[in-house]
This record gives sequence, structure tokens and C-alpha cells, in this order.
Amino acid sequence: MRRPLSQFRLGIDGGGTRCRFALTRPGTRFEHVLGGANAHTDLANAISILTDGLNALAREAGLSKDELRGVPTFAGLAGVMDDTAAKAVETALPLDSVIIEDDRRSAVAGALGGDNGVVASIGTGSFVVRQSNAGLRFLGGYGADLGDEASGCWLGKSLLTRLLHCRDGLKEDSPLVRDTWQRFDGRVDQVLKFAQSASPSEFAQFAPTVVEAAIAGDVNGQDLMQAGAAYIDDCLSALAWPGDEPVCLIGGLGKRYASFLPVRIARCLAEPRGSALDGALYLADTISAQNARAVS
Amino acid sequence: MRRPLSQFRLGIDGGGTRCRFALTRPGTRFEHVLGGANAHTDLANAISILTDGLNALAREAGLSKDELRGVPTFAGLAGVMDDTAAKAVETALPLDSVIIEDDRRSAVAGALGGDNGVVASIGTGSFVVRQSNAGLRFLGGYGADLGDEASGCWLGKSLLTRLLHCRDGLKEDSPLVRDTWQRFDGRVDQVLKFAQSASPSEFAQFAPTVVEAAIAGDVNGQDLMQAGAAYIDDCLSALAWPGDEPVCLIGGLGKRYASFLPVRIARCLAEPRGSALDGALYLADTISAQNARAVS
Repeated sequence: MRRPLSQFRLGIDGGGTRCRFALTRPGTRFEHVLGGANAHTDLANAISILTDGLNALAREAGLSKDELRGVPTFAGLAGVMDDTAAKAVETALPLDSVIIEDDRRSAVAGALGGDNGVVASIGTGSFVVRQSNAGLRFLGGYGADLGDEASGCWLGKSLLTRLLHCRDGLKEDSPLVRDTWQRFDGRVDQVLKFAQSASPSEFAQFAPTVVEAAIAGDVNGQDLMQAGAAYIDDCLSALAWPGDEPVCLIGGLGKRYASFLPVRIARCLAEPRGSALDGALYLADTISAQNARAVS
Repeated sequence: MRRPLSQFRLGIDGGGTRCRFALTRPGTRFEHVLGGANAHTDLANAISILTDGLNALAREAGLSKDELRGVPTFAGLAGVMDDTAAKAVETALPLDSVIIEDDRRSAVAGALGGDNGVVASIGTGSFVVRQSNAGLRFLGGYGADLGDEASGCWLGKSLLTRLLHCRDGLKEDSPLVRDTWQRFDGRVDQVLKFAQSASPSEFAQFAPTVVEAAIAGDVNGQDLMQAGAAYIDDCLSALAWPGDEPVCLIGGLGKRYASFLPVRIARCLAEPRGSALDGALYLADTISAQNARAVS
């Protein structure tokens, strides 16, 4: 006998600047968007935003509190660094069948659904993942201090290092470097002061100019984009990417790497199937199917 | 007519972990060592230590306060980042003829005296400088956030990045990497937590193991030392080092790079003539000679 499960599915894509909520039942989809939440930097605020979003969707869909409780839910949340944080959020939410994780798996599920392939997520930070019959294998995503190669933060920081190398005559100058110097009034102490306190997203503010300069032929911009693309290439090798699976570039900067990748990768680039919110809904559906099997 | 200048010279080598003072007159040298001082992180403490050191030397040498005032002095101090800091220290010291700078010029004067050549100072941080008939030209020394290539901090941080690359299969494992993993109980989160808050000298604590592993043939250790050596080599090119001037490797790690440099550099390696304290005394003497010329 099957337990009568909810026809609804709930997905949450909780990012640092925006939280997206979606509630579906066959044929209908409700969506809601609220401000950013990060379970690591402000847990109470994250829980409050998540609760607000759930309640708003329940109201729109005409679900009672009890009905909401039963809806299979997947939440991918920025800043969920370990099980403790996931558990704290889970306990606080009015849901009985919920999985809470960081925001990587829902991004992959959104891009690939259940298909095999590789996703390179390049935003302020970065990670690369392959989905195969063996499951998911993640590379990178170690943060700005030691990693996040190819990311916006990494591009920005690499630009400033390059600027200092140009000043010392270790590398040749270019318009990108000269323009960046002007932003610091040509003062080394200003560059160092900025770098000492800049957050990853502050470093990443330089990334669009790096991309544009590279596309316009700037030698330093091209060097940095090529170095980022080489990292993505190395990850594909380490992931034993077989050379015919789709490769999705996601995140604010992902697609900007398309023209810097080797041809054998570039010809496999594929549009992501959907958003991270779609991915969260897909995973909520998977949970539901697993629950159904577990009680059948 | 020449003004009757003091026969004494005073040199100060003020580092973050130790301050060395020397007072000389022809045929005699008094020395004194006190704790560390950094004019950037704790100006009041730096001034207090410097004053104590000067008073102690004056007592030993039997100099009155007025006599001390007239002694030509050069102080190379860690953490003197700009003229403001130098001026603040200068105003506070009981000296009339003093030059206060960061600790780079006295290190160079100690190693080369007045001769032409290159000094690569590789400790927790790093800088490379050439002394030629055109004067001094400094490269690097930009600090741990964006630079200090080849330094102890850079080696330690590069080792941890390498460790994550090995974990991801981007690079091959080695005993150095496996041992380092054990120091973090094989836990990525411990590595990231360390890197998030480690000071340059905490990163630099890994440098000796990198050097030793490299000498023992460890492939990852060798890669890191080769990358550091390549930076030194690049600096020599940028400085238009003519290929026959002496190259001095100073700082806690400097000499450890000797066997990783190309032969054309290795055969020009020279022992530094003296310490940074000797360099400060040499510069104090130069000041004195200039003063003498100015009033003659």
C-alpha cells in the first residue's frame, strides 16, 4: 500500500543576494522571491527569510500548515557548510520531508536534470562537478583564500597581482592594466590597502573588465582568462570527462569562458536545462519518489 | 671649516621579532638586543623599545644625552610603510641626525656595502633589489595578499593550494602532501579554517618542510621551490642584471633557493658582506659623510 503523498513539490534556491521559492503541483507553479540569506553568516535571518517564503507560497496555493508540512522539499542554501547548519535550519522550518544542503547539488540538477555531464559553476566563487552513473563528483569550491580558480574573485585578485608584476617589469603593460592603475590613482599603497580588506565580491567587481579586455584582445586579460580556462580543462581531465558528455557553464561568469576553452570542450557546451530553482524542484521530486518506494 | 661631527655611528635593525642596536666609534662597537617592534602594528611600543635601546647603548658607551643627540643614525624598521610613520618615530627619538626607513635599504647595504649587485631577501615576506650606478631598484615586497612570491608565507600557502589540487586529482600526491594532510587530520574544513585566519608567519611555518621535501626529491616540494626560483630569475631579468654582478640570497629562506636557481645565477651567488645591522651602520656613516660635505 502507498502512503497518500502530497501532490505538491517545494524547491528553494537560497543565495546570498536572493532567495527563490517555487511550489508546484501538476499543471501549476507558484513562485516567490525574497532577499538574500546565508546560513553561515546569519543563521537567524536565513531561517526567518525561509519561513516567510514558505508561508507566502502556502497562502498563495491555499495550503494549510499541516498540508505544507507534508510537501517534499529540497532547499539549496548558500552558507550551509556542514550538517550542524543544515540540521539547525531543518529543525526551524515547518516541514517534515525536507533536505537541506549547500547550493551546489540543486545547481547541478537544474543544469543537467538526471543526465550525465559536467557543470562548471563560475561566479564570485567556483566549482566543477561531473554527474555520471557513479554519482556526483565535485572539484574545487574551496573558497577565496586557497582556491576558487577561474572565479570572479580569482580573476580580480589575479588582475591586481598582474598589475604589480607589470609595475615591476615582470610582465608587459596593457590597456587593462593601465585602466586598473587609474582606478587606484596609480598608487601601490591604494592597491595593497584594497586587497587587504576586499571581500570576494569586491575582488569580483573587476572580473567583467577582465573578460571584456580579453575579448578585445588585451594580452593581460587574455592571459588571465586562459589561466581560468586551463583550470576548467584540468578539472575535466581529473573528472575523466569522456569527451562527449554535455558541459554546462553556469554562474555569472561561466559562459564568458566559452571562447577561451579548447575546441574539444567548446563543441560540447550545452545550455543548462533550467535554473537552480528548477533543480531544487527536481530533487524534491526525487525525494518524493524515494519516500514512495520506501513505504510501498 | 668642518663642523666637529660625532665620531660615533648608530645603527638600528628593527624587526618584528627582534631589534638590534649597534653604536660604534673607531675601534669600538657596542651592541644591544631587545624584543620585536613593528611601527605599523604598534607605534607606541616600537618607540618605547627604540628609546630603551638607545639609552642602554648611550649608558654603556658613556655618552651624555646631548652627545647621543648628535650621533648620525640609520634605523631600518619593519612596518614603516610611509613618511608619516617614519616622521612619528623620528620625532619621538632623542636624535638630531637620524634617517628612518623600512628595513629594506639597510638589508641591502649590509649585504653589498657600496658595491653593485643584487639582493634577494626571502623570509616570511620577500623582495628583490639591484644596486647599480643608477641607484637602488626594488621589486616585489608587496605583502602576502597579492605578492611576496618565493617567500615563506607564499610557500606555505602554495603548499595548501597544492594539497587541495592533489585531493581533486589535478596534481599527483607525494609524501610532502600526505604529511601535510595528516597535520590537518585529513580534513578539508580544517585546512580552510587555518587558511582563513593564518598570519603570514603561520603560513611560513610550513616552508622548512617544503624545502626539505624538495631537497629529498619530493615532486610537489620541487615544483614549489622551482616556482619560487623562477620568480627570482624573472626579477633578475626585469632588473637587467648583467650576469656578472654578485647575487646575495638573504633572509631565513634565501640560501635554500641556491640549488634551485639556474646555473648562470648560481655561479654568481655571493656571501652577504654583513648583517642588516652592519648595513644600518654603513648608512649612518654615509649620512655622516654627506653632512660633512654639506657643511664643508
